[in-house]
Amino acid sequence: MSEQKATNVTWHAGAVTRHDRERLLGQRGVTLWLTGLSASGKSTIATIVEKRLVERGKLAYRLDGDNVRHGLNKNLGFSAEDRAENIRRIGEVAKLFTDAGVIAIASFISPYQRDRDAVRGLMAAGEFVEVYVKVSLEAAERRDPKGLYKKARAGEIKSFTGIDDPYEAPVNAEIVIDTERSTPEQGAEEVLAYLEKAGRLTA
Amino acid sequence: MSEQKATNVTWHAGAVTRHDRERLLGQRGVTLWLTGLSASGKSTIATIVEKRLVERGKLAYRLDGDNVRHGLNKNLGFSAEDRAENIRRIGEVAKLFTDAGVIAIASFISPYQRDRDAVRGLMAAGEFVEVYVKVSLEAAERRDPKGLYKKARAGEIKSFTGIDDPYEAPVNAEIVIDTERSTPEQGAEEVLAYLEKAGRLTA
Repeated sequence: MSEQKATNVTWHAGAVTRHDRERLLGQRGVTLWLTGLSASGKSTIATIVEKRLVERGKLAYRLDGDNVRHGLNKNLGFSAEDRAENIRRIGEVAKLFTDAGVIAIASFISPYQRDRDAVRGLMAAGEFVEVYVKVSLEAAERRDPKGLYKKARAGEIKSFTGIDDPYEAPVNAEIVIDTERSTPEQGAEEVLAYLEKAGRLTA
Repeated sequence: MSEQKATNVTWHAGAVTRHDRERLLGQRGVTLWLTGLSASGKSTIATIVEKRLVERGKLAYRLDGDNVRHGLNKNLGFSAEDRAENIRRIGEVAKLFTDAGVIAIASFISPYQRDRDAVRGLMAAGEFVEVYVKVSLEAAERRDPKGLYKKARAGEIKSFTGIDDPYEAPVNAEIVIDTERSTPEQGAEEVLAYLEKAGRLTA
């Protein structure tokens, strides 16, 4: 490489470490990665987990379509290549939040195993917690809160996961929440219990 | 647009707000954007500012070449287009950190006014604080801690800002630190005083 690189002459003596930030926050940085079909309940669970954490004085931050697709990833479409880049960038951002000591809650369909595994590969052991928000296609279609499955079935939306695009169920998720058997509140409690047991809620 | 969009059926009742996070942290989210020539002292000042903030119990996080160029932006080069996309993505990430309540400290040469202005345009008033770390090219070349200017002069590094690529000095920076007149510690104190006065260090 013969082009300009960053110099980063950092002031090493006394620079802040990740552990300093974690001590300040009283928690350890971690990424909760919620994956599942549209209407599986990812966003609902993510929102409850965030709420419960902040009530306990823990800093959590949600990354989702609302704050990523219209910002960082607004120049990406829905081709397989762009979907991979979408997840790659979100993974890198989640890694930065994790390094900052934050509990990052990423909530994306993220249908491909290899893309999720690539994000896992960016992080140290214990930092990436894959949460499979499981629902059958049939149940998701029955819920269909925004009529998206209906539109996909009618051909009005293309490349819709579960209809004309695949969803690869996780093979190594740390947590599986079956939203046909558990309420969102129960699912959120499972996630919190996991974080507690894994020691992420103390520094 | 006829392709799949995020549904984001969020659980609105009781969802965490930005203000909840800011109250938890006892500070308001903000982006400090340090711009200046290579060897101007950006990283040194950023590191001291971060250190002083964390010592005061404030959550600050640095974004710099070390954690961005090899991660989020590793698929970008140094063409004008890629430099613009580099700064755009960093700006979007800084916006997310700011929304999370964090004091984000971005330290990048970021030579083009329009790219910096585009980042400013992403944020609300008061959230983006441009810090011009000013140094003459002559002084930067004299410092040249990693011999990069020497290599650029010899033609071994191409597109080096200040040598064969332009640096556009900020026209509307909130803070100007002339590192030929101030020590890095003095510069850092100026930044902290600004944050204090602007009310970003309380929620």
